[in-house]
Amino acid sequence: MQQMDLLISRIIEKKNPTVAGLDTRLEYLPESFLREVMPDGVHTLEDAAKAIFAYNRALVDALCDIVPAVKVQVAYYEMYGPAGMQCFADTMAYARSRGLSVMADVKRNDIGATAEAYAAAYIGQTDAAGAKVRAFEADFATVNPYLGADGVAPFTKQAAAHGTGIFVLVKTSNPSSGQLQDMKVADGRTVYEVVGDLVRDWGADLVGEYGYSAVGAVVGATYPAQGAALRVRLPQTFFLVPGYGAQGATGADLAGCFDARGLGAIVNASRSILCAWKKREGVPFAQAAREEAVRMREDIASALATAGKALR
Amino acid sequence: MQQMDLLISRIIEKKNPTVAGLDTRLEYLPESFLREVMPDGVHTLEDAAKAIFAYNRALVDALCDIVPAVKVQVAYYEMYGPAGMQCFADTMAYARSRGLSVMADVKRNDIGATAEAYAAAYIGQTDAAGAKVRAFEADFATVNPYLGADGVAPFTKQAAAHGTGIFVLVKTSNPSSGQLQDMKVADGRTVYEVVGDLVRDWGADLVGEYGYSAVGAVVGATYPAQGAALRVRLPQTFFLVPGYGAQGATGADLAGCFDARGLGAIVNASRSILCAWKKREGVPFAQAAREEAVRMREDIASALATAGKALR
Repeated sequence: MQQMDLLISRIIEKKNPTVAGLDTRLEYLPESFLREVMPDGVHTLEDAAKAIFAYNRALVDALCDIVPAVKVQVAYYEMYGPAGMQCFADTMAYARSRGLSVMADVKRNDIGATAEAYAAAYIGQTDAAGAKVRAFEADFATVNPYLGADGVAPFTKQAAAHGTGIFVLVKTSNPSSGQLQDMKVADGRTVYEVVGDLVRDWGADLVGEYGYSAVGAVVGATYPAQGAALRVRLPQTFFLVPGYGAQGATGADLAGCFDARGLGAIVNASRSILCAWKKREGVPFAQAAREEAVRMREDIASALATAGKALR
Repeated sequence: MQQMDLLISRIIEKKNPTVAGLDTRLEYLPESFLREVMPDGVHTLEDAAKAIFAYNRALVDALCDIVPAVKVQVAYYEMYGPAGMQCFADTMAYARSRGLSVMADVKRNDIGATAEAYAAAYIGQTDAAGAKVRAFEADFATVNPYLGADGVAPFTKQAAAHGTGIFVLVKTSNPSSGQLQDMKVADGRTVYEVVGDLVRDWGADLVGEYGYSAVGAVVGATYPAQGAALRVRLPQTFFLVPGYGAQGATGADLAGCFDARGLGAIVNASRSILCAWKKREGVPFAQAAREEAVRMREDIASALATAGKALR
């Protein structure tokens, strides 16, 4: 089964179009937990990576019957060096073992030959002198479009070959996203509309059983009008929607990213789940994360119901 | 000393504005060398990473008195998983120990908080419960601009704090680079000119003793007219120029990227050096790489002399 179809089926099964972002930083771990898992303290990057994996595993256990997917932001693992990358791999493997779809949020891109290596690393296979192995076992990777088609084609090729998928940055959630992305080009489109149209074309041959392609788009919840317009413009493109929670977007901001069936998008929240314990005094971190994930599910369900798009 | 100044002083000292790209793939290693370093064969990603490090170390030894810098393309290490990332770290550390400037070609970018993690990982420091350490010790990192200012600011901040530097993608060397980058925006500029102007502004406060900023630009040698125009447009921006050699650009294509002193750019070659042994029958790979690096140095010196820009 194509991973995009599997993701959508899990969204429907759990009635929850959200993804928990495991952007775990050492500072997010409660001191008591840190003492428990690392009684001798954290002194090296290896120690830090070990503690973070323990946190992630507990979060996955607490969330795996609530959310259909996790998104693992690789930057927070790269900052701990090779040990951090091992933690990244282990976190993704553990989440998969608990029945979750796994997105590697790597925002990779490069010229063709190099993009092939990235695609192999995350959503394909590496050839190690004949043995084909998966370096990092993700179901999806995020991809940056600045280099144009030949920086993306190797990813769509691997997606087609392995049933995996990608989300290409179209309209990002950050405050300065418009600096480049909102510029109007000669034909009247914005840069992000140009990219959106390319994403639609790149994914046209990979449309699955729900009518959505394995080539999705990243569309920030912090720009709701643009998200709603892109939903209409790109009817076969599934959206990964960051910006909910700590970045400021609410359930009401999201409804436009969904289609009439309540499908078409999955909303990410990271810090609001990872650090939920900080706002729930006395509640253990895993339970606090679970409560926040449930609250988020209800918030989005309510917003979709209000918009007449309740997921059935 | 700021790393950009150190890089330029090494270019002048070696009379060589080139950087060797260590985009090493297992397939690039001669079979005889592979048998020598891995007598039991390559069976795992760890084996592959070990063999690649041995190759890189031999190349660094062969090149370190010829070239001022190496560029390590992380995609070719990520594809071997965490062991590949250890090889990436070890390769950069070894090159630094041999007196070379080291560029981590990672093309990272993300929203602000995440970009901070990337910047810490490559050109800054990671805080592991109080201990400040370097996760991957690079002097420079490449950065993608699609998210605008707040995806880049954390990198310039770390560059300012640690004396390191970045190269922001402006006009890339790949065939489809124009798909987005050459589009004209409303004020008549192309997207890559818009990005170039941003790069100039982002680096304005970090200009060093040679008149070049720690915030550089990636400008592909495969588009010589655009490179020459950007040289005039961005007088304080140092260029990292890919596309020479295997990608098709020649010495003559490069001259426009340099200023009247013969400075202002460093030209990358990867496959033509890494795989030089394939075109030099009977010559050991390290010697072949060295010969190709010397040939490239002469080719570029000759092109600069013809253009009246000889490095003095």
